[in-house]
Amino acid sequence: MSTRPLGIAAIGYAFMGRAHSQAWRNVAAFFEVPAIEQRVLVGRDAEQASLAAARYGWAESATDWHEVIGRDDVDIVDICAPGWLHAEIAIAALEAGKHVLVEKPLSNTLAESEAMVAAAAAAQSRGVQSMVGFNYRRVPALAYARKLIADGRLGTVREVRTSYLQDWLADSEAPMTWRLRKETAGSGALGDIASHAIDQVQYLLGDTVTEASGRLHTFVPRRPGPNGAENVTVDDAAWATLALASGAIASVEASRVAVGRKNSLRIEVYGADGALAFDLERLNELEFLDVYGPKAEQGFRRIVVTEPHHPYIDAWWPQGHVIGWEHTFVHQIRDFLVAIRDGKSPSPSFEDGLQVQRVLAAIEESAAAKSITIQI
Amino acid sequence: MSTRPLGIAAIGYAFMGRAHSQAWRNVAAFFEVPAIEQRVLVGRDAEQASLAAARYGWAESATDWHEVIGRDDVDIVDICAPGWLHAEIAIAALEAGKHVLVEKPLSNTLAESEAMVAAAAAAQSRGVQSMVGFNYRRVPALAYARKLIADGRLGTVREVRTSYLQDWLADSEAPMTWRLRKETAGSGALGDIASHAIDQVQYLLGDTVTEASGRLHTFVPRRPGPNGAENVTVDDAAWATLALASGAIASVEASRVAVGRKNSLRIEVYGADGALAFDLERLNELEFLDVYGPKAEQGFRRIVVTEPHHPYIDAWWPQGHVIGWEHTFVHQIRDFLVAIRDGKSPSPSFEDGLQVQRVLAAIEESAAAKSITIQI
Amino acid sequence: MSTRPLGIAAIGYAFMGRAHSQAWRNVAAFFEVPAIEQRVLVGRDAEQASLAAARYGWAESATDWHEVIGRDDVDIVDICAPGWLHAEIAIAALEAGKHVLVEKPLSNTLAESEAMVAAAAAAQSRGVQSMVGFNYRRVPALAYARKLIADGRLGTVREVRTSYLQDWLADSEAPMTWRLRKETAGSGALGDIASHAIDQVQYLLGDTVTEASGRLHTFVPRRPGPNGAENVTVDDAAWATLALASGAIASVEASRVAVGRKNSLRIEVYGADGALAFDLERLNELEFLDVYGPKAEQGFRRIVVTEPHHPYIDAWWPQGHVIGWEHTFVHQIRDFLVAIRDGKSPSPSFEDGLQVQRVLAAIEESAAAKSITIQI
Amino acid sequence: MSTRPLGIAAIGYAFMGRAHSQAWRNVAAFFEVPAIEQRVLVGRDAEQASLAAARYGWAESATDWHEVIGRDDVDIVDICAPGWLHAEIAIAALEAGKHVLVEKPLSNTLAESEAMVAAAAAAQSRGVQSMVGFNYRRVPALAYARKLIADGRLGTVREVRTSYLQDWLADSEAPMTWRLRKETAGSGALGDIASHAIDQVQYLLGDTVTEASGRLHTFVPRRPGPNGAENVTVDDAAWATLALASGAIASVEASRVAVGRKNSLRIEVYGADGALAFDLERLNELEFLDVYGPKAEQGFRRIVVTEPHHPYIDAWWPQGHVIGWEHTFVHQIRDFLVAIRDGKSPSPSFEDGLQVQRVLAAIEESAAAKSITIQI
Repeated sequence: MSTRPLGIAAIGYAFMGRAHSQAWRNVAAFFEVPAIEQRVLVGRDAEQASLAAARYGWAESATDWHEVIGRDDVDIVDICAPGWLHAEIAIAALEAGKHVLVEKPLSNTLAESEAMVAAAAAAQSRGVQSMVGFNYRRVPALAYARKLIADGRLGTVREVRTSYLQDWLADSEAPMTWRLRKETAGSGALGDIASHAIDQVQYLLGDTVTEASGRLHTFVPRRPGPNGAENVTVDDAAWATLALASGAIASVEASRVAVGRKNSLRIEVYGADGALAFDLERLNELEFLDVYGPKAEQGFRRIVVTEPHHPYIDAWWPQGHVIGWEHTFVHQIRDFLVAIRDGKSPSPSFEDGLQVQRVLAAIEESAAAKSITIQI
Repeated sequence: MSTRPLGIAAIGYAFMGRAHSQAWRNVAAFFEVPAIEQRVLVGRDAEQASLAAARYGWAESATDWHEVIGRDDVDIVDICAPGWLHAEIAIAALEAGKHVLVEKPLSNTLAESEAMVAAAAAAQSRGVQSMVGFNYRRVPALAYARKLIADGRLGTVREVRTSYLQDWLADSEAPMTWRLRKETAGSGALGDIASHAIDQVQYLLGDTVTEASGRLHTFVPRRPGPNGAENVTVDDAAWATLALASGAIASVEASRVAVGRKNSLRIEVYGADGALAFDLERLNELEFLDVYGPKAEQGFRRIVVTEPHHPYIDAWWPQGHVIGWEHTFVHQIRDFLVAIRDGKSPSPSFEDGLQVQRVLAAIEESAAAKSITIQI
Repeated sequence: MSTRPLGIAAIGYAFMGRAHSQAWRNVAAFFEVPAIEQRVLVGRDAEQASLAAARYGWAESATDWHEVIGRDDVDIVDICAPGWLHAEIAIAALEAGKHVLVEKPLSNTLAESEAMVAAAAAAQSRGVQSMVGFNYRRVPALAYARKLIADGRLGTVREVRTSYLQDWLADSEAPMTWRLRKETAGSGALGDIASHAIDQVQYLLGDTVTEASGRLHTFVPRRPGPNGAENVTVDDAAWATLALASGAIASVEASRVAVGRKNSLRIEVYGADGALAFDLERLNELEFLDVYGPKAEQGFRRIVVTEPHHPYIDAWWPQGHVIGWEHTFVHQIRDFLVAIRDGKSPSPSFEDGLQVQRVLAAIEESAAAKSITIQI
Repeated sequence: MSTRPLGIAAIGYAFMGRAHSQAWRNVAAFFEVPAIEQRVLVGRDAEQASLAAARYGWAESATDWHEVIGRDDVDIVDICAPGWLHAEIAIAALEAGKHVLVEKPLSNTLAESEAMVAAAAAAQSRGVQSMVGFNYRRVPALAYARKLIADGRLGTVREVRTSYLQDWLADSEAPMTWRLRKETAGSGALGDIASHAIDQVQYLLGDTVTEASGRLHTFVPRRPGPNGAENVTVDDAAWATLALASGAIASVEASRVAVGRKNSLRIEVYGADGALAFDLERLNELEFLDVYGPKAEQGFRRIVVTEPHHPYIDAWWPQGHVIGWEHTFVHQIRDFLVAIRDGKSPSPSFEDGLQVQRVLAAIEESAAAKSITIQI
């Protein structure tokens, strides 16, 4: 690695591209990271890409990602394109010797994800790093929750209860989009949001899901398209129970039609000696209880996770000055850059992303077979 | 029915007997009900029964329920004995022409419950009433929730999310009891508490579960007994997804090892046009949201269910003066007595109790067969 | 004291009479107390009193309290009549050798309260006990809060923040009542509900208010009466800051026009080493924080005050089975009866009630003099 | 105004300088604003200023603010220096024709603030704008609260209840700083945080405080300094009641020793027809209740203020993706820049800042005179 700043290229300027851009733009103002430059933003539409690049702090824009990943002044490729493009871009970028950050899901199919894992392993042997963007691992409250569990503060974890509820599809008249077609989206609530819950289960416990039983349902089977009603071919909601290698059991419920829930990823972890509860709509808070001390004094304590001792927080503001959702991306990029600097494998790896895909596939298989439990 | 007060006999003076006794003692002070007399409390231990009777307001005590159900001055038999005795006592009492209230679960086996339903139907034709004690139907917030749903305030209900979490078995050293043996308890968290959640799903929606997929688990398989460790033969925790006749889907999670949760029956209902949320630990509150009005003003509203317009409340205190868990039993007895007075069938009926048992049996069958979905 | 049951007479059958009656009816079923009999309920209207007596468990009814306090079979007089009658009845009853429980406020004037204190002192020397009914001292969460403070768990208390907010007078068209006239009610929100907050401040800290600055306001100065609009001559809302002997400072805000608050007595206590928070609308909960342990783990813990180790709770139900507002009266009577049995002075005493009156008077005086601080 | 980007100079790089810098760096990525350039960051220490400038996105750094405000390429001066420097810098910058944004408090003395208001008026006549940084006006939930009140959704506002509680001085051993000396800080909790609460009262209601009664207290009168214990000469906590021109009454409590409260600005507003509640520790939420519709359905609704229809939010993320504390500064700068572009007076003006100072002064005067009410 030369001493010049690392050159960054981002592919995609929609919702995720915008979120990643603000992270690249701000990371160095808050964290000690290698010097970077926002070199180029790639998008299909030249004019839109140019406008977005100017707005989001990129030096220039481009429309051909093949060309961009070949540039000498690009060291890192950040893939925010739709899932069906992940494998092709990521593998090419890794082969071109670029470090790669790819948004979740790793890809839309198991086969693609397996190819990406192979490419990542090959690249890793050449010192080229890769990472998949399960950004909620960088919520300070959840990073701290993982630490509490790893430190044994909950004792043996027995049960994890998760749900990820949104309501942007609750209205039956909400129109058809690419996210509602199996061929473009892969799956619905399952891949889009249950994937976050499943990743958290494995992340928080440092454990692996070994079997799954699930159910999928589409409450609104047809939605208006530009030329009349179209069939929705993905799930609106998903349910699963998961067994983990440790013996813990987790439940998952995901829905995009849960009226009144905006972005509510809730997680509860129950161990032999303590418990945790979290809600993404209040992402600066963590509830924690342990069974030590007088029984009369026990209760879930609401920790405002804004102390310097909490993960990532010393870079931000004084206590009680809450941070926003987007900062999970700043933290993600901070960790990615530090791993690159130190020559270490970033986490979560493509292998971690593939493992989540395997669980999703098992849930789909189970759902198609009357919920019978599938081994992973 | 003569003009003399209705004579009440209660069988059992443990936890449930004590809760029912306070209801019999107080119901007439708050509600307009037929006159009653607390005639006799039945228990196996003569001395204990006598002390309990004196304490809880019963005129006398007895040890032989057979004798008591034959007494002319007993009109109503309230069965708070353990589940394995329900069928025998209830059927005998009904045949003796006594109205019967039986604590949930209706019984420990499907066969017994079916016999009880048959006995109740026969008694009903003779004007003798019966009721099973799913007391949470009489939580004002839940009775009001049912009304909101029945009035269409949520639109078509799509998803119900329930959990019933306790922690009194979280400690691995908590000793063996009859509640942890299959032959006495029937099942564990499933029958004890998931049954309440399942009854609520059907009650709130006015709907019927038609299929179930489930999982059971025993986290603490052996516990200390008087002569050394014994095997726990029931579940510590249970998970299920249920399909309802209407097309709604419900999830259920029950646990007696969920550290920090004391008596937390949580219910969330999501319809096309609104949603509800409830937690038994805050039983005077109901959260309600509907999608009408400006989107910017929408949010779950915390209704303090203590207004005169709320079910049962006009009998109690001014607004904001919260009531306790035990009053669900007062309400239950009020409704039971009014139904007897009016010659109408009380609700929930033995048939309702049997339907819950069928769902529990389906979950057990599914759990034993790798969670495969079972039709009910 | 003879071995026969203590005979109880209650005066008043409205809201408070009904609440006290349920306590007399139930106390022996839950607590170990001397035997009692609900002898006679006194009310001005013979027919209403008779009906109320039958309904609330009293053996008989009467209309003349003078006669009743002279009866040999009456040992305890429970005064639930309006405040302007308290002094006369209480003093007569004490002189007649009856133990007296009087609802708060002790009386409507300082002079009356001083006379009552004198009568109580004289009676005490003859073994006759007296108590004023600040029932919120018997909320388990608040009794437990007092214990935590007394045990030093908060360190030196610095600030107490209290509010008691209701909304039953928020509607400008709510009609005139005796509670809105100075001559019958004494004061408005100040005496009715701020008094509870002030008593709690002194009770929780075991401390005495030594000075007060206050403000009173009537937001709805005229209300409809039977013959047209009438002037409201008491306050709708009150504010005060109080200095305590220990150096702590407390704020008080009371309102009966705070839309949306039903019966919300909120109390927060901040000490050097810990803090507490409470809301009467969630009376089974107490929030507690201390500064010990790792800073990253600190947070207000929500204690569900339903454990056997919490005050009064072992008499009730298993953990998580919440109790209601009315049980504060059961606890109050339990403590009153135990004090009588043991020949000890019950708490809060008439002197405690007088001290609250003194604070109320100082607030009124301050409010009339541009909030200037008044010494007590 | 030329067509070149507006040049920005910021003075101060500590906490507030850092917060303002991120706002300048990000505003154009989210909002439509005139083009800007972060020209120069001014600080006393040349090396620190240089490092901060590089880190926070400024083209260069400087140490002499006099020189900077004279630069032709500087159009806007953003003053984040300590309060005692505000007046001198602001007046000089305005006279130099620069638009000025000054952090709250406007200054440390009434006299200085009055001079600043005069300078702002003179500048305004020349098209030069000025603004004081009460950033919490730009919390979307509070901006929306103001709109609800202005739209009459609460009816006539009667009571406002505010508190601003922190605990960073709770530890008696926390060391002496310039913030604890009257000569440098002006006042303690009063000016530092009660000022925010007071500004909110006036902002939310669109009203003016006309009289105040107050109390100040220093719980920890001496703290360790580098050469031994030093006297704390400002308040740790402050209490006030305020009357407003409309007849509404507001209470204020501020503390920096309220253990367990990190940055908790809580505001409750009660009107004749509705109410609002807010807590800065949950700044993405607003509780709102109105008295319309069935009484049984009324309750405080928790609005997650992340909808496109909420103020400022359409620039950010999809619903439920919460924003952080720092974005109040982005919004503030957005509004400042838009006002400059449109030639309109930004709000809050220096006059608004002065009005808050007058209220603070009245509280101090009242506190020094036994809380007697002071006219403003």
